[in-house]
Amino acid sequence: MPASPFIRFQDPQGTVWYGEPTKEDLATGLVGATVKVLEGDPFGKLAPSGAEAKVAKVLSPLESTPIILCIGLNYKKHADEASMTIAPYPVVFTKPADALAGIFAPATGMRELLLTLAGPYDDVHVHPDATPQLDYEGELVVVIGKNGKNISEDQALDYVLGYTIGNDVSARNFQLPNVSGGQFCYAKSFDGFAPIGPAITTTRAIPDPQALSYVTRVDGEQRQETSTDDMIWTVRQIIAHLSRGTTLRKGTVIMTGTPSGVGLFNPNGFLKDGSVVEVELHGLGTIRNRIVFD
Amino acid sequence: MPASPFIRFQDPQGTVWYGEPTKEDLATGLVGATVKVLEGDPFGKLAPSGAEAKVAKVLSPLESTPIILCIGLNYKKHADEASMTIAPYPVVFTKPADALAGIFAPATGMRELLLTLAGPYDDVHVHPDATPQLDYEGELVVVIGKNGKNISEDQALDYVLGYTIGNDVSARNFQLPNVSGGQFCYAKSFDGFAPIGPAITTTRAIPDPQALSYVTRVDGEQRQETSTDDMIWTVRQIIAHLSRGTTLRKGTVIMTGTPSGVGLFNPNGFLKDGSVVEVELHGLGTIRNRIVFD
Repeated sequence: MPASPFIRFQDPQGTVWYGEPTKEDLATGLVGATVKVLEGDPFGKLAPSGAEAKVAKVLSPLESTPIILCIGLNYKKHADEASMTIAPYPVVFTKPADALAGIFAPATGMRELLLTLAGPYDDVHVHPDATPQLDYEGELVVVIGKNGKNISEDQALDYVLGYTIGNDVSARNFQLPNVSGGQFCYAKSFDGFAPIGPAITTTRAIPDPQALSYVTRVDGEQRQETSTDDMIWTVRQIIAHLSRGTTLRKGTVIMTGTPSGVGLFNPNGFLKDGSVVEVELHGLGTIRNRIVFD
Repeated sequence: MPASPFIRFQDPQGTVWYGEPTKEDLATGLVGATVKVLEGDPFGKLAPSGAEAKVAKVLSPLESTPIILCIGLNYKKHADEASMTIAPYPVVFTKPADALAGIFAPATGMRELLLTLAGPYDDVHVHPDATPQLDYEGELVVVIGKNGKNISEDQALDYVLGYTIGNDVSARNFQLPNVSGGQFCYAKSFDGFAPIGPAITTTRAIPDPQALSYVTRVDGEQRQETSTDDMIWTVRQIIAHLSRGTTLRKGTVIMTGTPSGVGLFNPNGFLKDGSVVEVELHGLGTIRNRIVFD
């Protein structure tokens, strides 16, 4: 794997490549940049082919994922704003693979059941029933690089392919305890509710995942800002807990929890039709997704 | 698809087949029976090949699954025993595909990361941390037969391949609200915690999933007994709810909730090392799993 971030993209002819963007490419949004082409498999060896290609569309950095595991209530300040007690273990819920999926077929203009993952700049189409209290949650995302089970905290980072940024989109009207029986999964499992990207930065370039910082903006206004050193459970602890007696497969996406500032506790409130949500992992890229109410 | 139950099995040479057992084969446990071989794809057309084969080992009726969706608190009597309020929507949580997975490699005697699903008579190996309050939950299982989204209650059963029986094995010490933050997923997601089978009975043979009955036995003692007419949310309602804005992929397993009588509320209590749990779908087969504490 490369020591710097990698992306997955289409060139102007529609051919799909892995590529190595520069920091400047990441800062300026990637589209139109010419990047080094990488060949191989991100879970095996990904190395420069010697060629370059122009980025026409940025795709999900992952071709597929077995499951998205999510940690709730993992930032001290967010636990305070939600007035929630910290449990003795990480709080775990899931999103299905299709929460990463795009369902818009640009060629026909028809939304279809495309079994491909959505790109980091794609629109999030929202079912009418999920619109009344639609919320964002910017999160550091861990991508598992090889199958593992009963992984120790010491070895945990050896199982990580890299890091990216994500938005754990949440329909609060289906999440609050009086309607959900207290279970978070349903409210967060709609198709397209887990945009991630744009790049995966490997563990070689990020030796310490607790020293990152990111912000969430809605229509340009900053709503969340955190360093990952505010996490209650570290990435090492999360991986050890999730792999206890349970296989973590390569490609598994772990959303590690959101900091304070979500719409539910913000005077500016929830997302609207047309809202643009950006989550920026400092120096390592931004996802930008427009909300479209169906 | 056949009008009667089908199984997946190995013959004495280790070749894998689909087969059509008789009611008597299902009642007597299948192993050693000679059944009609079916050829094709259960999600497409599965039809008799004309050959017969002897059942040496019964495999999971599904070769793979994208995800296991689970409904909590779906029987009126169980809601009463748990003193829980009924939510305005079904309560949803998940198990990953590996909760169906077997991890025992018989050839070597070593447990390995076998990416195959466990059979209906396989042992359930339990991580030491998950043993203190280990519980059973017998459940009717729905298998989705084709991809769908925004499925109406009227059309819901058209998306069902068939029904089988399962055990939503639960480590209560990780489930109760004070340790889990109220989220059920973790306690139920350990490898092997979702045995299902032995046969899938298609919708042609079961036109009404609310007219089935099943029992759960632990070491021969009956612990749960229900008809599916005690369900709070019907199979039709569950499918409509789960597919709202969310793709249900073919092969998805839906565990529809457990009736009263779980170990947590039973004076005979939790499962022990060596306990044998049977869940019998009347007339349509029994899963039988020995609990092995690692």
